[in-house]
Amino acid sequence: MPVPVDFAQYIDVNADKFIQRLSDAVAIPSISSDAARRSDVIKMAHWLNSQLNALGVETRLADVGTQEIEGRVLPLPPAILGRIGSDPKKKTVLIYGHFDVQPAEKSDGWDTDPFTLVVHPTNGQLIGRGASDDKGPILGWLNVLQYHHQQKKELPVNLKFCFEGMEEFGSEGLDELVVKESKLGGWFEGVDCMCISDNYWLNSRTPCLTYGLRGIVYFKVNVTGPSRDLHSGVFGRMVHEPMTDLVALMSKLVDVKGNILIPGVDDMVSIADAEERCIYENLDYSIADVEQAAGASIALSSDKVEVLMGRMRHPSLSLHGIEGGFSGVGAKTVIPASVSGKFSIRLVPPQTPEAVEPLVISYLQDEFAKLGSKNKLTVENLHGGRPWIADFKHWNFEAAIRATKATPAIYKREPDLTREGGSIPVTLTFSESLGVNIVLLPMGRGDDGAHSTNEKLDRSNFIEGSKLLGAYLYEVAAVTA
Amino acid sequence: MPVPVDFAQYIDVNADKFIQRLSDAVAIPSISSDAARRSDVIKMAHWLNSQLNALGVETRLADVGTQEIEGRVLPLPPAILGRIGSDPKKKTVLIYGHFDVQPAEKSDGWDTDPFTLVVHPTNGQLIGRGASDDKGPILGWLNVLQYHHQQKKELPVNLKFCFEGMEEFGSEGLDELVVKESKLGGWFEGVDCMCISDNYWLNSRTPCLTYGLRGIVYFKVNVTGPSRDLHSGVFGRMVHEPMTDLVALMSKLVDVKGNILIPGVDDMVSIADAEERCIYENLDYSIADVEQAAGASIALSSDKVEVLMGRMRHPSLSLHGIEGGFSGVGAKTVIPASVSGKFSIRLVPPQTPEAVEPLVISYLQDEFAKLGSKNKLTVENLHGGRPWIADFKHWNFEAAIRATKATPAIYKREPDLTREGGSIPVTLTFSESLGVNIVLLPMGRGDDGAHSTNEKLDRSNFIEGSKLLGAYLYEVAAVTA
Repeated sequence: MPVPVDFAQYIDVNADKFIQRLSDAVAIPSISSDAARRSDVIKMAHWLNSQLNALGVETRLADVGTQEIEGRVLPLPPAILGRIGSDPKKKTVLIYGHFDVQPAEKSDGWDTDPFTLVVHPTNGQLIGRGASDDKGPILGWLNVLQYHHQQKKELPVNLKFCFEGMEEFGSEGLDELVVKESKLGGWFEGVDCMCISDNYWLNSRTPCLTYGLRGIVYFKVNVTGPSRDLHSGVFGRMVHEPMTDLVALMSKLVDVKGNILIPGVDDMVSIADAEERCIYENLDYSIADVEQAAGASIALSSDKVEVLMGRMRHPSLSLHGIEGGFSGVGAKTVIPASVSGKFSIRLVPPQTPEAVEPLVISYLQDEFAKLGSKNKLTVENLHGGRPWIADFKHWNFEAAIRATKATPAIYKREPDLTREGGSIPVTLTFSESLGVNIVLLPMGRGDDGAHSTNEKLDRSNFIEGSKLLGAYLYEVAAVTA
Repeated sequence: MPVPVDFAQYIDVNADKFIQRLSDAVAIPSISSDAARRSDVIKMAHWLNSQLNALGVETRLADVGTQEIEGRVLPLPPAILGRIGSDPKKKTVLIYGHFDVQPAEKSDGWDTDPFTLVVHPTNGQLIGRGASDDKGPILGWLNVLQYHHQQKKELPVNLKFCFEGMEEFGSEGLDELVVKESKLGGWFEGVDCMCISDNYWLNSRTPCLTYGLRGIVYFKVNVTGPSRDLHSGVFGRMVHEPMTDLVALMSKLVDVKGNILIPGVDDMVSIADAEERCIYENLDYSIADVEQAAGASIALSSDKVEVLMGRMRHPSLSLHGIEGGFSGVGAKTVIPASVSGKFSIRLVPPQTPEAVEPLVISYLQDEFAKLGSKNKLTVENLHGGRPWIADFKHWNFEAAIRATKATPAIYKREPDLTREGGSIPVTLTFSESLGVNIVLLPMGRGDDGAHSTNEKLDRSNFIEGSKLLGAYLYEVAAVTA
């Protein structure tokens, strides 16, 4: 079943109405991490639910429980489970998105009110909190649904939806729901593949599909010595100082080039062969891209493949800071009694938090023993999450690639095939619960500033992206599974 | 002129009245660092001034200017310049003390109200903020004056006084006054020696005289990279991370044993010969003393001489903390854009901030260059102060030693001869301006908790200490200069 001839035109003709709908969505400040905005997240759930119902989608508002935040017990916003179509001859595609947003205040440095969608007068960017992360993509799906609903066209696939309102605050409550609804008789029964539009192009030029996310394991290394903070004048060079020990340990974790010094950690990951290096070589990316994004000429290598593999297919170790030391401005001559170094390791397959943790802990203990300090060491694993990787040769990716390249349509080019350096933990939950292939099909560009000030979605990404999502459904229907 | 036979008895008989006067002094919360208490510091100046006048001391309240604190311009409390006696046949002794105190709140963990002097019912400790630091010692001098005034006894020496109210907040304004009054025609003209009672015994058993103080130089090492904080998922292993570089640098400053790794810094200080080691060997001190004070078994050595020399005659380098990193509780996956390591070096003669600074800066620059990072390094010297050391074979020390050993009197034992690991910066100012020998003759014990909760002065230290100060004046008069 090819994409209907009038689909792209319908999207173009209705673009202003779609932008108005995005404006309505952005106007609801659905900040999940702010207790005072919880009612707005719930309001946003009901707004979206009504939109879905009006477009013929059957929904259920799933209660995912409560949450204690700042000493108050708050209701979690409901997750929206939706479905449309149940033709056993069609494939069934599960769509995920989130309708909550990151915090934003004008005073953070926004040029305009973050909750008033502004259309930039010259470049057409749609500026507002959530425009790109993740209201724009959700509304892309609504645009596709609207075409079929208004034009009375049959959808090429059966669709199921899972939209949540807590993604920016740990997806609280969602894992349990996903596990439950993935079981026989659950809402997700019969799903053949999944599509998530909640990440970004690698740059601002080339559409991409994403097939991997890094995991993480986060450690806190505590060194304790005296029973209270000491005066460095009185005790300096009399006693073992916890800061000295901790800094010595932290200096042994990663070198300046980013190599992880904990034996066995980097070694868990295979070396990329020529074929795999080709993937990175072919990506539309340059050293200038990372240095522009970082705001300084600080790339670890001048080799684009090395830099991209550093983010996508290698683990990384970052030192985040020290708790308990003197961290204020000015000059304080304290010997802190107890200090805790924080660092995390981003993981790639086959690494898991469970496999990496013992290597880290025993290394730190060995290195601490070598120091010969009389202070005490403890190491805590604060949290972890496994990496995710999908088979990008799967028909689900084939459909997404065809949709991106399709003529007459949208981007008319081969998408970049990327892995992300960060995590979308719910991806792993869906992957493990459903056992189906998941394609990450982003709508926005790498410079959208998703968690930053002046978040934007380019008009063309919203409009062409809506066409892409629709085309993807037709390609899924057409591809040989 | 021997100590009058009734002096010790007078002090004993009037002990309760002296403790009442200390109670009156402690009741004025003269916290110099708290703008809201500035009027109390000024009140304390007037209280002390009246006491001095009532005991026959001629005084002048010296205006030392104003200070901007928390955006307000506040008057500095006046320094009190005093003098009694001008017999050209007598030696002239300058006494320094300070009538301001450290902050204290019951909620800090005090067992009793810090500004109500409490006499402990069993051990007789006088508990209250300032009891030991430094109101007790100042009142010791008043006790000596009172004996001479009431008993109509001539003092064995001419006395001059300099009491300030800003010692716990950087002695603001005092340096200029000291320099000015040390000139010909100034208040301090004709001073032969000086005595400061504002430090502590090495332990809680043995009186001591102190002949050295360490100096300090305080550095801030800044490493800056990206133009804003980065997400470790997105940028980890793509860019040079400032924290990685800074921790590597900080790990190269001092080893776990306290040795300073900056070439030339430890080497500036001569190695102690057998005679000098004897001084430390003879001090009444054990490893248990430092470990009890620190609250943990973390002494750098089991050799008491090494541990004491680490504090008294060696420089020390302490890492205080990192500004700009993630220092909160919890787990944040940030790559901080700019981080600043804070460390200071305690200095001993012949080290000076001026001599050490270039060694530190060039070492850090060299080590940073070796790292091969593309981030930027800057090093700031935040402040410095030179060390001070006195000739402990001078007649001023001889007098203080005799006073401590004297029979019939007070401690009847050889005092420890110590150097302090910290600083009393005004000592250096007096030493350089006046060019006279200064003895530090402490009244309190090493466990008085001067800047801590439940500050105390043992009753016996207050009473016997007052006798010691009096005896010291008679020994100064008697000793051959």
